[in-house]
Amino acid sequence: MSLPTHVRLVEVGPRDGLQNEAQPISVDDKVRLVDRLTDAGLGYIEVGSFVSPKWVPQMAGSAEVFARIQRKPGVTYGALAPNLRGFEDAVAAGVKEVAVFAAASEAFSQRNINCSISESLARFVPIMDAARQHGVTVRGYVSCVLGCPYEGPVAAAQVAAVARELYAMGCYEVSLGDTIGTGTPGATRTMFEVVSASVPREKLAGHFHDTYGQALANLYASLLEGIQVFDSSIAGLGGCPYAKGASGNVATEDVLYMLNGLGIDTGVDLDRLILAGQEICGVLGRVTGSRVAKARQAG
Amino acid sequence: MSLPTHVRLVEVGPRDGLQNEAQPISVDDKVRLVDRLTDAGLGYIEVGSFVSPKWVPQMAGSAEVFARIQRKPGVTYGALAPNLRGFEDAVAAGVKEVAVFAAASEAFSQRNINCSISESLARFVPIMDAARQHGVTVRGYVSCVLGCPYEGPVAAAQVAAVARELYAMGCYEVSLGDTIGTGTPGATRTMFEVVSASVPREKLAGHFHDTYGQALANLYASLLEGIQVFDSSIAGLGGCPYAKGASGNVATEDVLYMLNGLGIDTGVDLDRLILAGQEICGVLGRVTGSRVAKARQAG
Repeated sequence: MSLPTHVRLVEVGPRDGLQNEAQPISVDDKVRLVDRLTDAGLGYIEVGSFVSPKWVPQMAGSAEVFARIQRKPGVTYGALAPNLRGFEDAVAAGVKEVAVFAAASEAFSQRNINCSISESLARFVPIMDAARQHGVTVRGYVSCVLGCPYEGPVAAAQVAAVARELYAMGCYEVSLGDTIGTGTPGATRTMFEVVSASVPREKLAGHFHDTYGQALANLYASLLEGIQVFDSSIAGLGGCPYAKGASGNVATEDVLYMLNGLGIDTGVDLDRLILAGQEICGVLGRVTGSRVAKARQAG
Repeated sequence: MSLPTHVRLVEVGPRDGLQNEAQPISVDDKVRLVDRLTDAGLGYIEVGSFVSPKWVPQMAGSAEVFARIQRKPGVTYGALAPNLRGFEDAVAAGVKEVAVFAAASEAFSQRNINCSISESLARFVPIMDAARQHGVTVRGYVSCVLGCPYEGPVAAAQVAAVARELYAMGCYEVSLGDTIGTGTPGATRTMFEVVSASVPREKLAGHFHDTYGQALANLYASLLEGIQVFDSSIAGLGGCPYAKGASGNVATEDVLYMLNGLGIDTGVDLDRLILAGQEICGVLGRVTGSRVAKARQAG
């Protein structure tokens, strides 16, 4: 058993999390959340999304959020930029890192972003070109890597093909997402083994949903495969509204608890993280999705 | 990575689960639950406990439950027998397998069963003798194997010492319980490595609580250590009322979902299991603790 000594956590709560919560929250509350997450020691925070507020009202005000957060040197503040218009808005807001996303399943791509996988990849080419010109780095997401709500199981070779394209066009890292949370540890390991033949292992990240309670087991399986970057969401905020039964990104607190137990360094402070989660759950009026936070409250 | 091809699930919901739910339920409901669990294909069901109803009102009527369940050949129906009086009552009720429990932590032993670890082990000697005379098999539990609510971390050597005693006095299997759920996968693996120097690996079982969300990750880690028997509780019923913040045995449905995904045979049917869980949650008026059951309900 050889585990990494350091893991980088990519906090997706302010974007992937809040985007999938029922009601939008104020710019003030978003800024406070991002600042709290910075204070907790996270090195990467996905802050917002540059999409039309008509489609995603929860992400309105992302430019203002970027203008007002306290940026800490060395911390990456990312934003989703699904198209060139969004990319330009992001750059105008001072964003230095954007993310693009594709699906590993044709049916999910069609229903989620209204185009085929190859069409979605083609749309990223002008974003990649513009990013190079502006010195902006680009992270790629692939969804449905362990299952699709419409197609069922997804072949690891299909995930590898999409990840390879994203990496080849210039994404410095590709995050592989179990969007509907149906993956289990063996399938997770096989998927990373297959994909790492196309994209170097150190350029891959794992993004797990806890819908079926498998997220931490899959994350541990990924560590055993040498994966060292993981996406997670404070208090388990969000999910994916387009995927049946897809409730809940894995909670950052629970991931950190496991990594702490494994002696893996992240630079993140669990107590501060739990406080950040309590605060945003108060704003949203929802119960935390973190078991660690619940246990601490009960203890 | 070499995983077992077969895992034996020990269903503790009717005992460990119901014992730790707030209100007692009727004998009728208990019988129905056990029968449903039998129908789902479980090979081991812990049915009840022979203790004074004054101390554990939830376990009243265990003899009547044993008298009325439909016993399926090949299925083990176990009961907790904390002392000789309980053992005799169990035998009178036709019980062929009992369980005894000790703690790996001195402080927990004192507060939970009002005696030292060695005193508790001494009390089991007459039970073991009586069990041999009656042809009754005995399973041993050790609690707090990865942490104690009063002492904090527990040394693996201490767990090994208690497990060795139980095995030496005649327990055919020793179940190691993370009673407060603070264990993480690396500690789990170390614990099994150390204990298996004292008790053969195939005589050990894992019993995980999901209080901190770590149960399935720990279970996967245990599989990698060659452990092939796991305790779990339908719908995640129960916990431990004596342990601060200890809420929730890992749900059998979630364990089975992972094992199914890993291609490990258990002989248990997930759909029937989920129905059994829904039924008992209806009786208790509580929400299921199984994420798989929740996802299926939402889907």
